[in-house]
This record gives sequence, C-alpha cells and structure tokens, in this order.
Amino acid sequence: MAIVLGPHQYGKAETRLVRIVRDTDRHRITDLNVSTALRGGFSAAYLEGDQRDVLPTDTQKNTAYVWAKKLDPDPIEAYGLSLAHHFVDEVDPVRAARIEIERYDWTRVEVDGAPHDHTFVRTGQEVRTAAITLEPPVAHVVQGFKDLIVLKSTGSAFKDFLVDEYTTLQPTEDRIMATSLTARWRITDPGADLDWNAMYAGVKAAMLREFATLHSLALQQTLWHMARAALEANPAVAEIRLVAPNKHHFPVDFSRFDEANENEVFHADDRPYGLIQASALRDDAAPAGDAWWGYTGLA
Amino acid sequence: MAIVLGPHQYGKAETRLVRIVRDTDRHRITDLNVSTALRGGFSAAYLEGDQRDVLPTDTQKNTAYVWAKKLDPDPIEAYGLSLAHHFVDEVDPVRAARIEIERYDWTRVEVDGAPHDHTFVRTGQEVRTAAITLEPPVAHVVQGFKDLIVLKSTGSAFKDFLVDEYTTLQPTEDRIMATSLTARWRITDPGADLDWNAMYAGVKAAMLREFATLHSLALQQTLWHMARAALEANPAVAEIRLVAPNKHHFPVDFSRFDEANENEVFHADDRPYGLIQASALRDDAAPAGDAWWGYTGLA
Amino acid sequence: MAIVLGPHQYGKAETRLVRIVRDTDRHRITDLNVSTALRGGFSAAYLEGDQRDVLPTDTQKNTAYVWAKKLDPDPIEAYGLSLAHHFVDEVDPVRAARIEIERYDWTRVEVDGAPHDHTFVRTGQEVRTAAITLEPPVAHVVQGFKDLIVLKSTGSAFKDFLVDEYTTLQPTEDRIMATSLTARWRITDPGADLDWNAMYAGVKAAMLREFATLHSLALQQTLWHMARAALEANPAVAEIRLVAPNKHHFPVDFSRFDEANENEVFHADDRPYGLIQASALRDDAAPAGDAWWGYTGLA
Amino acid sequence: MAIVLGPHQYGKAETRLVRIVRDTDRHRITDLNVSTALRGGFSAAYLEGDQRDVLPTDTQKNTAYVWAKKLDPDPIEAYGLSLAHHFVDEVDPVRAARIEIERYDWTRVEVDGAPHDHTFVRTGQEVRTAAITLEPPVAHVVQGFKDLIVLKSTGSAFKDFLVDEYTTLQPTEDRIMATSLTARWRITDPGADLDWNAMYAGVKAAMLREFATLHSLALQQTLWHMARAALEANPAVAEIRLVAPNKHHFPVDFSRFDEANENEVFHADDRPYGLIQASALRDDAAPAGDAWWGYTGLA
Repeated sequence: MAIVLGPHQYGKAETRLVRIVRDTDRHRITDLNVSTALRGGFSAAYLEGDQRDVLPTDTQKNTAYVWAKKLDPDPIEAYGLSLAHHFVDEVDPVRAARIEIERYDWTRVEVDGAPHDHTFVRTGQEVRTAAITLEPPVAHVVQGFKDLIVLKSTGSAFKDFLVDEYTTLQPTEDRIMATSLTARWRITDPGADLDWNAMYAGVKAAMLREFATLHSLALQQTLWHMARAALEANPAVAEIRLVAPNKHHFPVDFSRFDEANENEVFHADDRPYGLIQASALRDDAAPAGDAWWGYTGLA
Repeated sequence: MAIVLGPHQYGKAETRLVRIVRDTDRHRITDLNVSTALRGGFSAAYLEGDQRDVLPTDTQKNTAYVWAKKLDPDPIEAYGLSLAHHFVDEVDPVRAARIEIERYDWTRVEVDGAPHDHTFVRTGQEVRTAAITLEPPVAHVVQGFKDLIVLKSTGSAFKDFLVDEYTTLQPTEDRIMATSLTARWRITDPGADLDWNAMYAGVKAAMLREFATLHSLALQQTLWHMARAALEANPAVAEIRLVAPNKHHFPVDFSRFDEANENEVFHADDRPYGLIQASALRDDAAPAGDAWWGYTGLA
Repeated sequence: MAIVLGPHQYGKAETRLVRIVRDTDRHRITDLNVSTALRGGFSAAYLEGDQRDVLPTDTQKNTAYVWAKKLDPDPIEAYGLSLAHHFVDEVDPVRAARIEIERYDWTRVEVDGAPHDHTFVRTGQEVRTAAITLEPPVAHVVQGFKDLIVLKSTGSAFKDFLVDEYTTLQPTEDRIMATSLTARWRITDPGADLDWNAMYAGVKAAMLREFATLHSLALQQTLWHMARAALEANPAVAEIRLVAPNKHHFPVDFSRFDEANENEVFHADDRPYGLIQASALRDDAAPAGDAWWGYTGLA
Repeated sequence: MAIVLGPHQYGKAETRLVRIVRDTDRHRITDLNVSTALRGGFSAAYLEGDQRDVLPTDTQKNTAYVWAKKLDPDPIEAYGLSLAHHFVDEVDPVRAARIEIERYDWTRVEVDGAPHDHTFVRTGQEVRTAAITLEPPVAHVVQGFKDLIVLKSTGSAFKDFLVDEYTTLQPTEDRIMATSLTARWRITDPGADLDWNAMYAGVKAAMLREFATLHSLALQQTLWHMARAALEANPAVAEIRLVAPNKHHFPVDFSRFDEANENEVFHADDRPYGLIQASALRDDAAPAGDAWWGYTGLA
C-alpha cells in the first residue's frame, strides 16, 4: 500500500477586472471576476517543491488582464476560450485549462430621460457565469447564471405528499414559490459562429416563461420544465443543471388578532430552506469530461 | 461619584415581511425588512429586571405584521409613521419610537414581451430605506437608500492635492470614479399630503444627474453637488447626509507587456478604500432631535 | 434660506495591515484593519473641488503603514493615538483626527505540545476594537470589542411582561440566552501609563462574569449589570455602551412525536432578533465630544 | 434525440440545531448546521408533479431534530450515519441519502479561573464538517473542516518558477505563507468502533505539524506533505482533498520613506488570490462512489 498524489490543479482566483471600451465618447463597460486554473504535469511541484514547470498564479493574473485588452471580453465565453487556448497552446507543461468568469451587469444612468455616455449603475439581478474547460482536442463551455431571485405570489401548490410519523406540514393549494436560482448549461465543442449573448438571453427567457406560466405542483416539477425548456430553446445546449433553494414564505398566523390573513402577509424565512437539484440532458449528448469539475471555491 | 444608567432602547430587528396585494389578478408585492425600537420608561427592566412595562419584542414583531395588513405598506414612510404612532399612542410606557425599514425592489417578469400578473424578479439596485422617529409632538422621517453602485468611466480628475513626505500618489486628469452610495435625507413634521414615492424618485434622479454631469475634481466636490441638488429637488427636505466609499479602479500597469493600456483595463480593488462623508442642510432647518440616532446595527 | 455644507470628514478605510515583530526567532504578529479620518478646514474641496489642503487618502494609508514600523502597534490604542497626533500636529489643515482599528487575534500553533515560533492560527472569538478621537487638547479612546458570541443554557427567564392585544409570547422560567455582543467603553484624556491590554482583559472578564453568574430576568437586566461591572473594573472608564442582539433559540415542538423535548433541542433562528441597547456612565464623566461620532460604515 | 431527466436530489438545507445535554448541572452544547438530501425514485415528482413518493423537506427537518434527541449528536459522524440509515431504511422510495453537517465549537466561559457549568463562548477557529453518503450497502463518511486560517511568518520561499513574457513576479527566499484551509478526508465503510473525535484531532494535528515545520518551496509542496501526513496519521482514511487559497501578504514598499521594511509590515490583500488544490489517496482505496457529490450550495 502506498500513498499517491491524486487530482490537483492550481491557479489565480477572483481577479476583479474592469474593461472600458472607449473608442468613441459612448463608452462600454465589462465588469468581470476571472479565475484561471491549470492542469498538467505539475507533480514535481507537489512532491518535491520543484517550481520549474509552474507558471506563477501572478502571471496568470497578468495574462487575464492583457487578454482583456487584446480582445473585447464581451462575450465572456469567447474571451475565456481564447485565454484557455493561450495557456494550453503556449505554456508547455499545461495540458488542460479551466477558466471561470462571473460577469456583473451595468446599465447606463438616465439623465433627463437619455442614457448617459459614460455613467453607469450596477444592475443587481443575476450574475452571469461562464466556465470554460479546454482539454484538447475538446472544449466545453458551461454558460449560466447564479442568484436570479424570482417569486410567484400564486400558481403554486404542495399537497398529496408522502406522510410519515415525523410529518407535520399541512398541504396547501396556494402558496408563494420563490427561489434564488443557479443554472448552468453545457455546450461541448461550440461552433465559432455561436452568438453567446443571444444564447444567454434565449435560454434565460425560456426558463422564466416556464417559471411564470406553469401551474406548479412542486418546485421539482417547475425545475424540470425549466430545464427542458432551456434545451428546447437552443440546440447547442447538451445538458443543463439547476440548483434551487426553496425560499420559504410562511403566511403569518393572525388567528389571535383582529385581522384576517388570506395569503397577504408573509414571513420570509432565512433558514432552513428546501434545496432542489434537477438536470436534463439530450440522450445523444457528447461526454462531459471535466466540464463540471469546478474550480473557484470548490472543495 | 455614582454609576448611572445612560441612553437605552430595545426592540425587534429585521422582521422580514412580504406583503402581497391581491385584490385583483394583478398582484403587487412589497418586500420589507422592518426594525422597531421603543424608548421610554424602561429603567426598571434594566436596573431590577422588572418587565411589567416591557412590551415584548415578539409583540412588536406581531404588530408590524398586523399593520402591514391594516394598511398597504407602500409607501413605507406612511406605514412606519402609523406603526410608530401605534406604539407611542397605545402602549403606555412608550415615550418615543423608532422604525427602520429597508425595502427590496421587485419588477414583473416579462413573458413574451408582457409583464406577468403574479411573477416577479428581484431588482438588485439600491435598497430603499426609511427611518421614522416619533418623539411627540415631533415626527422625523429620514428617507434614503444604500448600496447604489455607480461608476463614471471618465469626467473625473484628482490632482493639485497636498503633498507630504508620505505622499506617493500621482495626480491624474482622467480616472474612473465609482462608489456604493448611501444617502439619507431628513423631513421633519411632514405634511399629510406628501407623495413619498415621488419624493424618492425626484431626489434620487437629481443626485444621479449631478454625479453624471459634473466634471469632478474630487469625490468631495461631487458629493456636495449631489447633496445640494437633493435639497433643491424638494423643499420638504431639511438636511441630507451622504457616505461614499471611493471604490478604487487602478489602471493595470502594462509597461512590461506588448500592449498599451490607455485607461482601458482596470483592477477593481476591494480594500482599502477612500471614505468620504458630506452633508448639506438648510440654514433654517428644524432641529434634528434624535432623527439620526440609529437603531439597527448601531454601536 | 440657504443651503450650507454640514459636518464632513474623509479618510482611508480598512487598510489591512499585518505587523511581524521578528527581532528574535520567536516572532510576534499584530493583525489590524485600520481606518483613518481627518476633520478640519476642507470646505474648499467640497464647495469648489480645490484639493490644495487635502492630504490624499492614499497618503493616510502610507502613513498608517510607516507608523506600524516606527512603533510596535501593540497595544493598538497607543498606536492610534500616535497616528492621530501625527495628522493633527504635522498636517496643517487637520483640526481633528479619528482612527478606528479592528484587531484580529492569533495564537501559536502547537507542534508536539509546544507553541511554535513563527506559525499561528487565527482565533475566532471577538474582534477587539479601538476608536481614537483627537480634538486638541482633548483625546478620547473608545476601547471595545464586537462579535463576542456567548450563550448560557440555563439561568435566564422572561415573564411578567406587558401584554397587549398583539402579544402571543408565552412566559418562560428557563430559556437559552445568547447574544453576539458589541461593547465600547470610553476613556477621555488617558494617562500615559495606562496598561491598555490589561484594561481590555479586565473589563472583558468582569462583563463575562456577570453574564455567567447573574440569574437573568431579561437581557436588559443582564446588560446593565455587565455595563456597571465594566465601570467598576477600571476607574479610567467613564462610560460604556452595549448593543446585544437577542439570538433566539426556540425549543422545537415535539408534541406530535414519540420523544419529549425538555429544553434539550433548539432551533437557532436567524431573523428577526431582539436588539437591546444599554449604557452606563459615571455621573462625573468628562464630556464625550465627538468620541462616539463613528467613521467606518457610518451613515 | 430526446431530452431526459438527469441526476437529481432534494432535501432540507441548513437546519440550525442546538442540542443541550443537561443530565447534570454541568451542561454540554452541540451546535450544528444540518443538511439532508434524498436520492431515489423521485422522477414522477419532476416529470408530472406527483408528490406521492416525496417525503417533504419539512419532515426531513423534523427528523433531524428528533434524531438529535434520540442520540447525542456528538460525534456528528455517528449522528449523521444514524439519520441516513433512518431515511434509507424506513422511507420506502429513498435509495440513498446524503447528510452534511457543520459543527461550530464552543468553550466554557472562565469565571474567576474556573470553567462555568452552563455558560459558553463561541470559539472562532475552523468549522468542523462531516458529509455522510449512504448508498446501501456502502457508507462513506467524509470528515473535515473549513476556514482554518493559518499563517507562518517565515520558512516559506517561492523562486525558480517558469517565466514567460507576462511574468513580472520577483522570486523570494522569505515570505509570509497564509491560507484559509479546507480539508476533507474520506472513510468508506467505517468500523463501528471508530473514535471520530480522536480521528479528527489526530488528522488536524498531523497537518498543522507539517504546515509549521516543513520549509516550504511552494504552497503545492506544503499541501502534499499535509495530505500525506493526514493519511499516515490514521489508517482508516482512504483519501484526502485540500483546497487552499494563497492569502497574499505583500511587504509594503518603503523605498521612498524614512524607514526600512525588512519583512515587517505587510498588506493583507483580499483578491485575487492563488488557489491550490491537492489530494492524496491510498493506492488500494475503496471506490469513492458518490462520496464527493456535494449537496449544500453545489451547482
């Protein structure tokens, strides 16, 4: 019996990079959090502390900055693919690269009804994400978002569930359903002419339509319908994974007060929360390889 | 020499209250974080543990919920004033009340181009705030917001500053100016016909116009102009206070690389940050009393 | 009626400064978060953008670093006083200075039972704080801590309280009492021979003894006794202020299960929470001036 | 080509459970954050909204509470295994269960030098974690911790690394090395007589010894030595995974000031940070199955 080195990777996490395109007076802004990780022949660094094949994480950070100048980092997926190719193609010991990006959205400030040329306000809806895994000759892009907080104030029930001796929950025909949705969908070997921003808008819109219009019998059902709609929205998407905390809104008990509460006043509870995971894939989907092997914050 | 009890107050913090108005199929949502504090003759509770005059914080929470049914909590300022009057007028030992409210904004999800009747997505821009202090016969309302993240990519300089032996900063004619703005403005003894939501929109728009259009020589100057514009926007506002972290965006040094960086690629730094505070008031403003004596999270 | 500039200050917040004393092989570490603010004749910067009297916040940061070399920043109070004197005495437009410091505590890692010379682990108990306000000729030091999480599993009741129509809380003879305590105590014009670290240890110990040993009828009562004990522990302390969230631990209702729950299994709730504030002062305490006018995170 | 349901699970996340053992006057406290997830025949819930086989997440929460009464939840691993067996053995549609637990540590308050019977203070060092995966007939326990913040002020170098055109980092013979360590180690089919608390203490001590005593040429090397030491410390451990952010401490440049900085004054930077992952395993380790398929917060 011996102890051996297992899977490993290293890189620079959370480089906060802001790119201003200022070719004209009407500036554009791209605001990113970029993480890079390299995989390959680095066992000597672990086993013996030999750094000769190790490109410093500081260099990875510098490269991420320079790449944001070489090309406009919007869309983030094309930027990430180009950066991954640089590491894999140009740095000898690197066999695979993982790039994870968060994009924070900004909109123009309105001044007297007109969007301003160079003043922006951060929009606080979802954070758009991309995870690029380049394992030559295969490239995976996982497009997605996190923290999309949505709520429907009716059109959701929960009843006829399994009951055991520890079940005290009462069934309901009409409840608030709310979640802070994380969604990630995989495209393997994307074509060069893919319109990443249009894909993002289309998949997100398809999912929101399902969330709004399906009369929900359970969050599980809603997630499946959202997942399926995402794949139907774009043929390039091979697979999608959703994680949804069930953010409970409990009607406050008014039975002892001089008012009735007919699903009008709720307590938005913090913890605990239901947590539902769903996924959908095409039955002919290309293999996922390490596309789902996360980097930032992974354990 | 004796040790005496000093200022004190107690209450319930961060009641997460969601109110759905569902009189028609087109629901409305008001999403609040409500904190209440009572001031008055409570020294026996501190000195002797005598609770006879102490209305439990749990009761304060219940009352906040019931009040959200009795009246529509939009606008939050009228809701807070009514709740404060209840505590002061109906609960005998209470001499003054403080209500602090955060409001999270939601917008309707668009389905096929139309805003949906009962499905909402959380907008992530600023959190609107209100702090009501009722010290009979005077009532103060401090309207405001926090976490409004704004950035201008040009139109800001910083130069000609004081230099001492520890100064290494280089002057600049053109930099990114960005902040996460907190603003609070005071109205004392508001008239019953005040349109709180219109006031909020007007003051915010006036401040954003100044932020965007003033060619800034320093964040201090920008804040003063924003503060003055707020007071000019609405005669009921007696005073305004602004706190602005200077969220530094440093141009990345490309001098050793094969690319130039002409204010295009920035590192958005976390800490440290400049922190600038400014205030403006009318020279005939009514006294502030305890209007600025905060409750939630105060030390 | 005119609009005038009100109170203002500016500085550098959250400079994360680590000082290693390595005069011998047995290193010492002091880990700080330092914020500085200057008050004085800066109205031209606000009104006209004139920076000639403005010492950049970047310079304030540099100065904080240099001062941590000039003198050992342990104790933090002496370091802060020295830094404040530098700004007020050496920088002409500065009339008063405010220094706020957080100190994170580290302890030595034990290796085979012995504390290691240069390897440390962060202890996660309370964060020690200091706020120095120098308004010549007066100096105020507010020593304190935040986030001291304490809990007693018995010895606390809550009953015989005021009941109104919205009261549903049941009285209890025996409950968990828990809080995350913030405490700040003021020393005005401290003598040069004050032992700050001994004062800190003594005041904290006196408060914890009261928390543990007093049979509590209410968190208010506990806070008052802790506050009084702090002043009794050290004659240099003129005043103390406490803020304590009542972190509710609710016994879980087992009435429908095959087990009894006799104050053994609790749900630790997040929000809402009671929030109690208490203060104590000597009746001959020197005036507080701006000692309590906070800087970091203030609104 | 068809769209099919992929992997899925559901449960209750972050039940904040406090257990007091009060058989004598000397109480004990166990403070937990428990998440449960069920896997099995739940596709009808997703595809058709049919809840007949779905045990509500609310019931899972209730069960976690009751189980904390049925048995002392210290050690957490035995508690989690018992809870997992309940779901798999007693609830028909459940084929596998995942229990994730965080444990927050408390110590007794000292009063006049003696540890108090029922008053505790939260220690803020690492959070101990356990993840139990029961896939009959196999049970995996992943023991570990997160957020163990350690620092060595010397004994760490970084030099002789790979240099490309974007490399600007200077080599160093002596730097601060600091991290906030996450470690997880797997035991598959643990024997009934395993002493979980002793294992935890032993593995942690072995890792800290390596961190302190190895003269480090890179964080990669340190992690490998820590991982190997963990496996050597306990033969039941089959595999270990480490994630370590390299929390950079940069010496402040004093070259323009009247002081020297010989590795004494550092800026503790927030972002970006290096992120290094390492793992070690026995070459005869039992297969991991779904032991590493996380639940809480996973995407």
